[in-house]
Amino acid sequence: MKTLEQLSAMIDSAVQMKNQVWASQMPVNLYQPVSYSMSAGGKRLRPLMVLLGYQLFDDQVEQSIPVAMAIEVFHNFTLLHDDIMDHANVRRGLPTVHKKFSANAAILSGDAMSFLAYGFLLECTSDKLPQIMKLFTSTALEVCEGQQYDMDFEARLDVTADEYIMMIRLKTAVLLGCALKAGALAGGANEEDADKLYEVGIRLGIAFQLQDDLLDTYGDESAFGKKIGGDIVANKKTYMLIKALETAREPEKSALMDWIMAKQFNAQEKIAAVKSIFDKLNIQTQTSDLIQSYLEGVLSLLAEIPAAPERTALLENLVHKLVNRNN
Amino acid sequence: MKTLEQLSAMIDSAVQMKNQVWASQMPVNLYQPVSYSMSAGGKRLRPLMVLLGYQLFDDQVEQSIPVAMAIEVFHNFTLLHDDIMDHANVRRGLPTVHKKFSANAAILSGDAMSFLAYGFLLECTSDKLPQIMKLFTSTALEVCEGQQYDMDFEARLDVTADEYIMMIRLKTAVLLGCALKAGALAGGANEEDADKLYEVGIRLGIAFQLQDDLLDTYGDESAFGKKIGGDIVANKKTYMLIKALETAREPEKSALMDWIMAKQFNAQEKIAAVKSIFDKLNIQTQTSDLIQSYLEGVLSLLAEIPAAPERTALLENLVHKLVNRNN
Repeated sequence: MKTLEQLSAMIDSAVQMKNQVWASQMPVNLYQPVSYSMSAGGKRLRPLMVLLGYQLFDDQVEQSIPVAMAIEVFHNFTLLHDDIMDHANVRRGLPTVHKKFSANAAILSGDAMSFLAYGFLLECTSDKLPQIMKLFTSTALEVCEGQQYDMDFEARLDVTADEYIMMIRLKTAVLLGCALKAGALAGGANEEDADKLYEVGIRLGIAFQLQDDLLDTYGDESAFGKKIGGDIVANKKTYMLIKALETAREPEKSALMDWIMAKQFNAQEKIAAVKSIFDKLNIQTQTSDLIQSYLEGVLSLLAEIPAAPERTALLENLVHKLVNRNN
Repeated sequence: MKTLEQLSAMIDSAVQMKNQVWASQMPVNLYQPVSYSMSAGGKRLRPLMVLLGYQLFDDQVEQSIPVAMAIEVFHNFTLLHDDIMDHANVRRGLPTVHKKFSANAAILSGDAMSFLAYGFLLECTSDKLPQIMKLFTSTALEVCEGQQYDMDFEARLDVTADEYIMMIRLKTAVLLGCALKAGALAGGANEEDADKLYEVGIRLGIAFQLQDDLLDTYGDESAFGKKIGGDIVANKKTYMLIKALETAREPEKSALMDWIMAKQFNAQEKIAAVKSIFDKLNIQTQTSDLIQSYLEGVLSLLAEIPAAPERTALLENLVHKLVNRNN
């Protein structure tokens, strides 16, 4: 059995090996943004979940590297395109691809990455490959749907908490579910266990995104790596804002609406004011409680997986790390 | 055996059926551009080639409809993204998706279409599916490479004829090769025949694009459906311009360069002047001759395919139609 660190090292070395190829592949203007994006690091959470899912059922964990690479490359493809759509200038402390190269480069290199992802998948020798391909393809489409809902919600003030959870399920959680389930299937899991691991990924993904939202408002700026309060400034319809809009009474309700509608304002003032309304409404605790309930769902499902406890424990460790992270 | 008209009707009805689903699928802002793009028509050349490739080897041609749909949806995905990158406003007589909806819609709906394409492929029940998936995936990546070369060439004046053929091979021809070969494989062709049909597609694709270039300069505006001379106005490095730059002597060489470098000019004057240089250099005949030589390659390869002559004849008819078209 391999440790989290060993599995992470396997992923890093697989990414680095491919990056050396992409860095000099022709046409240069297509593959350089691929290599730039893939070498920027990030948590490598999704490929790690593929390997962890695989290792619950089998020791030849290197067999799942192609699936892990597919999911990491796919994830980075979505970042290239999302960053254009969201006008994001910085990602992982570096200029985004459309800023560093061009919007056209981010579009086309992103497209290439989606096909590179399928290329990795097709290297997988598992007899479950057709099933993994179907899972991956329906997941990819759902991720597009999630991004669309996210953009649609920007223009709306009446987004419900249920709608928000549905959106982050599509945009974020299904890919974690897909990672765990694809790894498990490649490792020889039966249908029932693979489906449970999919659900583990879903709940973890929702908890992960809610934690992200919490950190954006209540995190420590130096650890978080980006400005605190960005979601508040942009009126992002997070679970926290939705809950605040749902539960606020006067005069907080009007104050909150005024800040949302304000065209000109001092960002620090808006952040402080909205935060203090959140605090009055106990939004931080409500969100933490919701995260906790998803987390309990994760752990109880994991307990049902018939794998050696030390293997399940690796996943549990990762789950705790993710939900207790500060960045 | 089905006629060209019957096969076309099969494709139209498959597209229409899916379009009805997409037209009302949620999220609306993701699927409406898909339905808009797919209902705009076009030649449906690529799906037709899948069916023709299949019918060379088997009669259950409806079995290849999922592959045909995959390739048509993929082709339309590339149009959505190419039209953003090329700032094209009109496609098939209608506003392009990024004009009608938004750039974000064209990016994200295009992405969704690439995964919808894989979804169709995965409906195919052929035992050759893994091979078809690999072919499709490497083809898709090559199409991205071709689009990148096309954009790279815009900034260069020293593009050679060989480079141009390499570019249109990637951007246009490999998808025709993939369509014919995937259809043939699904129909039960052996490796050797499938590879020959791939080459048929490649040569036909190159001839097709050269013909497109010819029509852009020498076509009949009302039949062609867009303004004649657009490539000349935009200094597009077509085979014709490349050959003219290669073979022009003074004073034509300087005159041509002056028109290329001119920042301000009357479009009709430029078109007429460049055309008259082309005429002096016999560019139209040279291009027609090159098309003819690719066409002969197509026909001699087709003659080697061990299928009933009336089945090969359908493909030959299509080839002649395409290369003698005026739009």
